[in-house]
Amino acid sequence: MKTYTLALIPGDGIGVDVTDATMDVLDVAAAKFGFALKPTTFPWSCEYYVETGKMMPDDGIEQLRPFDAIYLGAVGWPKTVPDSVSLHGLLLPIRKAFTQYANIRPHRLLPGVEGPLKAEGFDILCIRENTEGEYAGAGGRVHQGQDNEVATEVSIFTRKGVERILRFGFEQARARRKHLTSVTKSNAQKYSMVFWDEMTDKLAADYPDVTVSHMHIDAMAAKMVMAPQDLDVIVASNLFGDILTDLGAAIQGGLGFAASANICPDRSVPSMFEPVHGSAPDIAGQNIANPIAAIWSGAMMLEHLGEKIAAEAILAAIEAATARGIGTRPGASTTDEITAAVKAALEA
Amino acid sequence: MKTYTLALIPGDGIGVDVTDATMDVLDVAAAKFGFALKPTTFPWSCEYYVETGKMMPDDGIEQLRPFDAIYLGAVGWPKTVPDSVSLHGLLLPIRKAFTQYANIRPHRLLPGVEGPLKAEGFDILCIRENTEGEYAGAGGRVHQGQDNEVATEVSIFTRKGVERILRFGFEQARARRKHLTSVTKSNAQKYSMVFWDEMTDKLAADYPDVTVSHMHIDAMAAKMVMAPQDLDVIVASNLFGDILTDLGAAIQGGLGFAASANICPDRSVPSMFEPVHGSAPDIAGQNIANPIAAIWSGAMMLEHLGEKIAAEAILAAIEAATARGIGTRPGASTTDEITAAVKAALEA
Ligand SMILES: CC(C)[C@H](C(=O)O)[C@@H](O)C(=O)O
Ligand SMILES: CC(C)[C@H](C(=O)O)[C@@H](O)C(=O)O
Repeated sequence: MKTYTLALIPGDGIGVDVTDATMDVLDVAAAKFGFALKPTTFPWSCEYYVETGKMMPDDGIEQLRPFDAIYLGAVGWPKTVPDSVSLHGLLLPIRKAFTQYANIRPHRLLPGVEGPLKAEGFDILCIRENTEGEYAGAGGRVHQGQDNEVATEVSIFTRKGVERILRFGFEQARARRKHLTSVTKSNAQKYSMVFWDEMTDKLAADYPDVTVSHMHIDAMAAKMVMAPQDLDVIVASNLFGDILTDLGAAIQGGLGFAASANICPDRSVPSMFEPVHGSAPDIAGQNIANPIAAIWSGAMMLEHLGEKIAAEAILAAIEAATARGIGTRPGASTTDEITAAVKAALEA
Repeated sequence: MKTYTLALIPGDGIGVDVTDATMDVLDVAAAKFGFALKPTTFPWSCEYYVETGKMMPDDGIEQLRPFDAIYLGAVGWPKTVPDSVSLHGLLLPIRKAFTQYANIRPHRLLPGVEGPLKAEGFDILCIRENTEGEYAGAGGRVHQGQDNEVATEVSIFTRKGVERILRFGFEQARARRKHLTSVTKSNAQKYSMVFWDEMTDKLAADYPDVTVSHMHIDAMAAKMVMAPQDLDVIVASNLFGDILTDLGAAIQGGLGFAASANICPDRSVPSMFEPVHGSAPDIAGQNIANPIAAIWSGAMMLEHLGEKIAAEAILAAIEAATARGIGTRPGASTTDEITAAVKAALEA
């Protein structure tokens, strides 16, 4: 029997709740479709930081490397550890160390879910650059605390980094409705974003079957609200992709429905799967977090591992549950109820 | 009679159409409320660039300095001049040279306008930093065209720049519903945005009557779509404010309704007023652009000049027109019809 090794990092807050829910569902899928999952849980989190002074051990990345995939719940517990520390200590280094340069986030309305927009029939795939750009972590502060203090933040875009994410975007578009929209802000950021635009135009020649559009981030934010049905695949930098995918989560009914995959396409190292939502300290451990985004992310993991039929079955089970009104509205169903409904639909 | 000197820069595309419309309405207001407007038109635009190689003359800023206010239609004609050139040659230098550090943008639904959201009763004032940050124009490209090419874009935040925009935000909140939300991305940008957060916390002590929240830009983008009615005043960096105000324009029914003021609060130099929309080359000169955003921006200019009653009367006239369905939907009314309806309501 095929066995996949999984590194589970439940992390903080509802990250723990939704990781449990996801593994419950994935185990059912494994039994049904004839493969095995061998999870190892890592306690890396803000609690771990409080105990050890680190978000993960120094050799954390090496510990993760042998696994077939990484599943992460959520990171962050700002009451004890500032987000800038916890995220730069765990989530962001994993994305970078394993060159998970393609962050994939699907945005569409599940059946039964009421979104905030009047528009309904959209199906957007957002491809976010995940390793450099505005999140490079470069910059500094001079004259701290004084009148002439200056803080800088340096966005760094490499040709390799830009080319690979754009090619990934073109390929995703090719596999869908063949329309790619590249999002920049080249009218105001004349180095990084002009470079990105040039690369987009250059690479377009290799994908003559894909129609490419350019759009500025501000116009795209408006577009996603005014006419999301016109969009197919979006490709954007780390920051712009981050913003657009939270907006995508909003129009699909909320962060409870937004799944994501952090992919290293050459498969030489593990990819990481996580819901877009954070650790939501205010509702942690109360059995009320919506696990759908997390379970959907788990399905993306199975698909990446080669279990496409199982992945599709999980998505169908999620849809069967939401079509019955389960998990469609905040507070209407508990985490356990939603998980049970998805499992039942999957077993049926 | 009080006379105000105005520098008009209609600019490109529909910038010309909506500047004409606005001046028509402002003239009616002046006659009615007993003041005079003395406009001087500057032809600075992409056409001007094609003729002269510059978006404005070398002493352009000095030519504008003596005016009481600047009114700008829109800049950009990408078919002949790249946006990165036209905007860095005209719009952005004016904002910076006259320290128009506060970009004010109101977002609410005018009567009769159907927005894309199910939510309706929101009233948001966005305060955008307008002179530095992600638009500093610093950065560069190394190894251009080669495999190891790197492009950088440097965001620069000064203590003076951050403090003044935050104070402006606190004061606007104080004059409204006393709630300020400061938007950053301090979980990923650990220099600039952490600095901004610290400054917000420090200054909050001076405004004990204002409630302050912090929100990340991604969460705020989602919030504006999911629960805009919870928001009062938002303060954000140049880029984040840019994105949020296009989103604000979207939820208020489109860019045809989004007004803005670029304010130098100490009034030592002219402030600039402009609709948020761009030059829209595809519909330029066809008498179909919606002039409401532009006219509303003109009202903000009169208010800044001290003619608050005239400004309020123009806004009431706009609302009277939209309540009758004029200008509420793309294509339903011509530019001239909308302008005439606002003038008629103002004269009534
Ligand atoms: C938590 C944060 C650093 C992270 C990001 O911005 O990448 C999150 O918002 C996301 O979208 O995955
Ligand atoms: C045209 C562009 C440079 C400008 C900006 O981003 O400032 C516009 O989008 C705006 O919001 O005023």
